[in-house]
Amino acid sequence: MSSYADRLQALRDQLKADRLDGFVVPLTDEHMSEYVGSYAQRLAWLTGFQGSAGAAVVLPQDAAIFTDGRYTLQVREQVDGQHWSYQSVPETSIAGWLEEHAPQGGRIGYDAWLHTSDWVGKAREALGKRGAELVAIGSNPIDRIWADRPQPSTARLVVHPETYAGKSSAAKRQEMADWLREQGADAAVLSALDSIAWTFNIRGADVDHTPVALSFALVHDDGTADLFVSPDKLTDEVRQHFGNGVRVHGREAFEPHLGSLSGKTVVADPERAVAAIFEALDGAGAKVLTRRDPAVLAKAIKNEAEVAGHRAAQARDGAAMVRFLYWLSLEAPKGRLDELSAAAKLEEFRRAGGDLRDLSFDTISGAGPNGAIVHYRVTEETNRPLEPNSLYLVDSGAQYPDGTTDITRTVAVGEPTAEMRDRFTRVLKGHIAIARAVFPEGTRGSQLDSFARQPLWEAGLDYAHGTGHGVGSFLAVHEGPQRIGAANYPGSGWDEPLRAGMFLSNEPGYYKAGEYGIRIENLVMVEQRDIAGAEKKMFGFETLTFAPIDRSLIEVSMMAADERRWLDNYHERVLQLIGPQLESEVAAWLELQCRPLET
Amino acid sequence: MSSYADRLQALRDQLKADRLDGFVVPLTDEHMSEYVGSYAQRLAWLTGFQGSAGAAVVLPQDAAIFTDGRYTLQVREQVDGQHWSYQSVPETSIAGWLEEHAPQGGRIGYDAWLHTSDWVGKAREALGKRGAELVAIGSNPIDRIWADRPQPSTARLVVHPETYAGKSSAAKRQEMADWLREQGADAAVLSALDSIAWTFNIRGADVDHTPVALSFALVHDDGTADLFVSPDKLTDEVRQHFGNGVRVHGREAFEPHLGSLSGKTVVADPERAVAAIFEALDGAGAKVLTRRDPAVLAKAIKNEAEVAGHRAAQARDGAAMVRFLYWLSLEAPKGRLDELSAAAKLEEFRRAGGDLRDLSFDTISGAGPNGAIVHYRVTEETNRPLEPNSLYLVDSGAQYPDGTTDITRTVAVGEPTAEMRDRFTRVLKGHIAIARAVFPEGTRGSQLDSFARQPLWEAGLDYAHGTGHGVGSFLAVHEGPQRIGAANYPGSGWDEPLRAGMFLSNEPGYYKAGEYGIRIENLVMVEQRDIAGAEKKMFGFETLTFAPIDRSLIEVSMMAADERRWLDNYHERVLQLIGPQLESEVAAWLELQCRPLET
Repeated sequence: MSSYADRLQALRDQLKADRLDGFVVPLTDEHMSEYVGSYAQRLAWLTGFQGSAGAAVVLPQDAAIFTDGRYTLQVREQVDGQHWSYQSVPETSIAGWLEEHAPQGGRIGYDAWLHTSDWVGKAREALGKRGAELVAIGSNPIDRIWADRPQPSTARLVVHPETYAGKSSAAKRQEMADWLREQGADAAVLSALDSIAWTFNIRGADVDHTPVALSFALVHDDGTADLFVSPDKLTDEVRQHFGNGVRVHGREAFEPHLGSLSGKTVVADPERAVAAIFEALDGAGAKVLTRRDPAVLAKAIKNEAEVAGHRAAQARDGAAMVRFLYWLSLEAPKGRLDELSAAAKLEEFRRAGGDLRDLSFDTISGAGPNGAIVHYRVTEETNRPLEPNSLYLVDSGAQYPDGTTDITRTVAVGEPTAEMRDRFTRVLKGHIAIARAVFPEGTRGSQLDSFARQPLWEAGLDYAHGTGHGVGSFLAVHEGPQRIGAANYPGSGWDEPLRAGMFLSNEPGYYKAGEYGIRIENLVMVEQRDIAGAEKKMFGFETLTFAPIDRSLIEVSMMAADERRWLDNYHERVLQLIGPQLESEVAAWLELQCRPLET
Repeated sequence: MSSYADRLQALRDQLKADRLDGFVVPLTDEHMSEYVGSYAQRLAWLTGFQGSAGAAVVLPQDAAIFTDGRYTLQVREQVDGQHWSYQSVPETSIAGWLEEHAPQGGRIGYDAWLHTSDWVGKAREALGKRGAELVAIGSNPIDRIWADRPQPSTARLVVHPETYAGKSSAAKRQEMADWLREQGADAAVLSALDSIAWTFNIRGADVDHTPVALSFALVHDDGTADLFVSPDKLTDEVRQHFGNGVRVHGREAFEPHLGSLSGKTVVADPERAVAAIFEALDGAGAKVLTRRDPAVLAKAIKNEAEVAGHRAAQARDGAAMVRFLYWLSLEAPKGRLDELSAAAKLEEFRRAGGDLRDLSFDTISGAGPNGAIVHYRVTEETNRPLEPNSLYLVDSGAQYPDGTTDITRTVAVGEPTAEMRDRFTRVLKGHIAIARAVFPEGTRGSQLDSFARQPLWEAGLDYAHGTGHGVGSFLAVHEGPQRIGAANYPGSGWDEPLRAGMFLSNEPGYYKAGEYGIRIENLVMVEQRDIAGAEKKMFGFETLTFAPIDRSLIEVSMMAADERRWLDNYHERVLQLIGPQLESEVAAWLELQCRPLET
């Protein structure tokens, strides 16, 4: 295996051969996916960076890696500072950095299948200021030097049954067709993998932890569709499920097919479809209507079957979490656990609970200072023991056929310090503030974010990530379009009105670099609230995740009466829902964890 | 005086003669001012609408008036629904409405001196979808039919002394020159009237309540400037104040002067400079650099002299407010007061306090249901008595040479209902939440807005306006760039980081249409906070306004201990600062108003 320095040099040699003065390496695929198949892990291959978001730019002399606040520590541990300069987004953008560093009059390459048109426009403008040029490259130069690059997965499609989906694919496509006719459009491009899985009620296994299949689709104004997916992935059951309304083509037929849409009015989503799709439609003489992918909002608002499935998944997942926390309470004090063994045990409990299809992401199992690395991924090299008098943070989730879970708990191993208890209690107060929030119709997640930070702000503290993300139904654990985060925080979603039936995570945290990390995460659902005398339609959150919160970390004197009531009531529901599923000694332990707080 | 129906018909006739199919009538002037001189009150002349923000569009058949949530009630009372349809922004935009209603292929006129380029671009795009055209009109058709249109004011300029300004105009211009060179620019256009007044340390009297003069300016990279203002306005003192660094030209010389900037790089602010300025620069062959007007942020961050001046102005203004509230407590129960007489008395107290140059806006004096009209302006026709067992809302401010004030108090006349007390207490809790907020450097006002709404949201209530606006130093009572308001609320400012020395209003409210209105407004200043153990630079607010809050409207049992402490402490400071200035019987009354809350 070549060194990262060799790979960087090989890329520079390749660029020189291609007469390019630079190349941009994002961490995404042809579907603008957040998590990508191993064949598309070009950034990790080139730099060693293992985080889930980032990008790199390679110039003849300079090379820079761009990551956000979650990865400030991690990028410095994984990527060699001799060869790479570390850049923080949003403080520095790729376009802004190129404006400063690109060679005057140079040619900077990009792969049009891996960037949005919006990004291309901004980068082109920034380079223009240097007299430099942004050049679309037909064949990605990394793919040409990456000798052992994995092939795309050949995993089979499975049908996502209507008992879980709550609506047939034909009905979903008919609603899209009605909307297309309202827009005066003939067809919509679907390129986001979870939008395609949702629309066709299928699931795949091409991407770790997200049950989607590499594919593209066109949905037409008569409710029929063209689906572009490798024919190897189809089973008879799936073909029968599709019926006559879905015409299946190979994935490689997508680009030529776009070329046949001359004269058609086609909806494409500038946030989700890559620049190459827009270029192909423009080149074909199609009229492009930039609208959000019609699956996005429909998918985010869960129907009754999806909510029921999620509740069942949470009950199952909560039992696994409680068994794990009980086991941890016995084993951790013995001093023989480490991050890997703890994460493995948690997965074992989930698997034993039945119906586990996958984890919903790589478990973040962070002991002591590793807990302060927000999106830490444990490896053999970084694996730490769970030491006495430290904190252990575990952020994990599961893919069940009826739902996707995501939960974080932070537990004390031994005796926590007064500072740890203070910080944990502030994070908990922020978590409760979101859980108890009541807000009028039309409120955006950006209007709620500060409620979670206020108890930390009062002590001069904060956390460098958002407060909540959407979650799919046996789909992506990070799903749009809604979000709880400040409007000025990078990424979209701040301006999306929260609607009844949307799922969100509620996950404030606090991280002390080199010492410990704290995060408390439950999933919640937006629900309508009846308030006597209300002048508007009002919403609040129903908490969907059930596992106890470590009471040894709570400084009860810092909590207001209504905060204590919320926690007592939450613990009571945990006990009611999870207790009956447990073996007697685990149930007894849970009962102790769920008793009311002593004041 | 012609009827509004006649005026609308006259405009339609004029448009027909000009071969136009429509015309857009904003409420602004050539400086994108919020408050405009009477010569520019075209919207009021055409429609009768007296609010401070709005716009109209006239088509051959349809005519629409666009206002925001503050004016929902008022526009229906002042503008004839027979001839005008009422449109709410942001739900409906002018561009969006034109896209629906403009005649296919029609020509819609606009005055390029009254719109931003951004607006022109959006409206042009929307009309394009109807095959219609947006056409710049050289001479405003309203001016041609408005027979008795007032002439622009001829008021003289006065020097704003350095004791109040805290920095000489030469020093301010030198800082701009340094910045221009950093940007690679030769000059900056200043067209916002308060930016010009601030930059040159002058004040005028061309606009009611805002001490500015109709003018344009160019500041050059050597610190010299060209000022375009009617020479009639200059006195020897002002000429001497300007010195050699400022070349004065007539206001009408501005447009031709822009035409002479061929080859120059010129900064212009797309939010503040009208489309005509950009067109003139483009036409001249100048290179336009779109940047924010360099006076905007510098003006918003008050220096020590400005802060000291503001404190002196607040002490003076608070004494007038307390005398007024005392007088009200004696006179209102007698049943002979009305909105006009109360507002006149308040102005009398302010005038008697000395140094009053103007009110900072038309006093909002709202009795009973008129209090629910957010930006109510009392007239002889709408004047209401202050009736027993009602609420009276008074939002007012003053222009003093050392500072600009803006305060709202809501007082009970007679016995308030339990509902009024509940609502008032919720508004007060929101006000206190802003006053007590602590937040890290980089926080935007949009991240604080919900703190003010939370107590109302909990009861299913809200208010349809922002929570806080910037305030000038003997300048505009509404000043940018900062704001406290949701990011999705119309207008700019949500993304501006709050900085130490910025002034803001803190003014949550609650309005029950047809019954009563509540608003509690103090001005606050962003200040740095030292917090032990803080990991970031932290900020909070210092409250600058001093007048008691009506305790008969407070439901003490709804207030948390720290909220009660805040109010008791605030009242203690009111008594300390204002008490010594008062006559003994007023001082005794104030002492009673400022005693600690009884629990």
